[in-house]
Amino acid sequence: MEDGPPTADAGTPGELLRLLRDGRPRTRAELAHETGLARSTVRARLDSLLDAGLVSDAGQGASTGGRPASRFVFNAMARVALAADVGATHATVAVADLTGVPLASETIDIDIADGPAVVLPRLVDGWRGLLYDGGLDHAGLAGAGIGLPGPVEHSTGRPNNPPIMPGWDGYDVPGQVSALLDVPVLVDNEVNLMALGEHTRCFPDADHMIVVKVATGIGSGFISNGRLHRGAVGAAGDLGHILAPRGGDQPCRCGNTGCLEAVASGPAIAATLRTHGLDAVTSADVVGLVRAGNLEAGRAVRQAGRDIGDVLAACISMFNPTLIVVGGSIAMAGEMLLAGVRESIYRRSLPLATENLRIVQSRAGSEAGVLGAAAMVVQHALSPAVLDNQLIG
Amino acid sequence: MEDGPPTADAGTPGELLRLLRDGRPRTRAELAHETGLARSTVRARLDSLLDAGLVSDAGQGASTGGRPASRFVFNAMARVALAADVGATHATVAVADLTGVPLASETIDIDIADGPAVVLPRLVDGWRGLLYDGGLDHAGLAGAGIGLPGPVEHSTGRPNNPPIMPGWDGYDVPGQVSALLDVPVLVDNEVNLMALGEHTRCFPDADHMIVVKVATGIGSGFISNGRLHRGAVGAAGDLGHILAPRGGDQPCRCGNTGCLEAVASGPAIAATLRTHGLDAVTSADVVGLVRAGNLEAGRAVRQAGRDIGDVLAACISMFNPTLIVVGGSIAMAGEMLLAGVRESIYRRSLPLATENLRIVQSRAGSEAGVLGAAAMVVQHALSPAVLDNQLIG
Repeated sequence: MEDGPPTADAGTPGELLRLLRDGRPRTRAELAHETGLARSTVRARLDSLLDAGLVSDAGQGASTGGRPASRFVFNAMARVALAADVGATHATVAVADLTGVPLASETIDIDIADGPAVVLPRLVDGWRGLLYDGGLDHAGLAGAGIGLPGPVEHSTGRPNNPPIMPGWDGYDVPGQVSALLDVPVLVDNEVNLMALGEHTRCFPDADHMIVVKVATGIGSGFISNGRLHRGAVGAAGDLGHILAPRGGDQPCRCGNTGCLEAVASGPAIAATLRTHGLDAVTSADVVGLVRAGNLEAGRAVRQAGRDIGDVLAACISMFNPTLIVVGGSIAMAGEMLLAGVRESIYRRSLPLATENLRIVQSRAGSEAGVLGAAAMVVQHALSPAVLDNQLIG
Repeated sequence: MEDGPPTADAGTPGELLRLLRDGRPRTRAELAHETGLARSTVRARLDSLLDAGLVSDAGQGASTGGRPASRFVFNAMARVALAADVGATHATVAVADLTGVPLASETIDIDIADGPAVVLPRLVDGWRGLLYDGGLDHAGLAGAGIGLPGPVEHSTGRPNNPPIMPGWDGYDVPGQVSALLDVPVLVDNEVNLMALGEHTRCFPDADHMIVVKVATGIGSGFISNGRLHRGAVGAAGDLGHILAPRGGDQPCRCGNTGCLEAVASGPAIAATLRTHGLDAVTSADVVGLVRAGNLEAGRAVRQAGRDIGDVLAACISMFNPTLIVVGGSIAMAGEMLLAGVRESIYRRSLPLATENLRIVQSRAGSEAGVLGAAAMVVQHALSPAVLDNQLIG
């Protein structure tokens, strides 16, 4: 219903490309007709897109009597997007085309606590390896997108008081990466990028959705009106530090008590299992026990699901989403977590808010973050504002 | 960062008007330059906007040697927007210009329980009276916007299981109103419209904000990335039925227990005050006692503020807004409510989420809803999709 931002430069190359990104080839005449732009404007804009390689001549369309007209089409291979999803102990790096589809990817071991001066060059090495192996050494690069396991001020690309990332607070991640690799660098919280990945590649029609990650920490990313909602300082989606009804005085690593993360994260579930004499420390231990059919572990994961559902019920009352996607390592344990989540949500929500709500397991799985990082790069590189600046200067 | 929707029809009259809505007069040549449109296209588009009265000839600009060129400007008085904010016991009706500024308004007594067949004609009578009194009988009407005190499916304009509106559930509000007055009719929840009103008229730069209404019920409206977030079925912002930490077994009119509304709404505060032997039933009674300096009443309102802050803290963790606006009749009691809200929010939120957060009293006050209703009509009527359909067919 609301207007979008004013499109003062409706006739720029970037706006023309936005049209062509649907993949349909068009003649110059068709483009002029579709946009109302002067033929001379269409010709000039197309020329700069052809020069940049972003549009290709797709051959001739049907003749209308005279010389057959050339048809032009978006060239998704014109440049390569670099993407990385960085966790505490490993990172996934990928190279993708301009539709955001990965061409190759690799998982590398890292230790986030080694700090950015060690970790970031490893990502760059990873990308260089993928480019070399894929024969893409000389491909133009659209940019690099990096997801980090903590709050990030998206506008500057600097981590903002990340709790598990010693040495990263306020660090100029884009500066460091672009010193090694001369490309635009975009940084975001990994859970935001999971949400962007699930949205763009798996659920493009879900305009209002929440993607929850349940692992060592608990976080979420939120799509509103089809766009990632990052919030004022990129701190949106912080599900893990909302007070859980069952949280009580349970101390949380954030310094507060009763946070959702303190009762329902992988380590919190493991702690519960240890009180039952089980040997569990990490999320992987918990998942292993559930998969082995351990009843206590199944119960504990289901209870964590209920706790998460209690907090999500509040989010559902506020957002009225159509879709909740649950991912992260604990979600890999199967239906137990989701069963608990659903139980609480349906108990605590008004019927209206849940009548069209789907609650599903992550579809992109462990790829969600890196798919989102690639989507972020493509959205940026092909946005009219950025592209026009490059092409017209 | 994300792309907006594709602007296939960059050269339509609606797109041209979007440019001119900034109020700056421009010549045809300036418009052609600014948009890249062919001069012939600009001329044709301007002609249809001039015919529709939406643009006026603002006289001649500086001569560039030849015949001085005419300058064209948006005409905000071309049509009138009708707006209504309907509460349980009264409604505010207004007429506004195409910038959304009210030209006249009036508050009329109604009883929402009389049902739509009685209430809606009263709104139409109110608008007709304002148009007549303002000499606007023959003005073109841009549309009518109506805020209702319950959930509304915005796409159809039908109330969706509203709890305090007998006879309204599923009622075709737009159909009934446009049978009386032949204009497009848009309907939304009144708290969504309060949020739109505060955003468009008082805080246009706050891209992420939550507007809370504390009165007989408790609700909120949420602006994400500068746009109203209505959610899947228009049920977003339902703060009142989120479980409050202090809610316990307190029964709520929704059928659940422990809801925020059951402990912090006007009637809930009044019930607390009655246990102290005070004579209070409505929000107005509570506000009266606070204003009279009653200590118990002040304490109870502050505690309600804390309860609301507890729930808002969860919303802040999820949204990371820059601004919380607190309105509604209980907010009129002064700083007590806000003091409690701030206390809980700062206790329960991560430092990152609150470092740039402002928490303020409503600025539009009781006008917020009707301002939002007018803004909704203007946004709709002047959106390129709607306007182009009218002008080009």
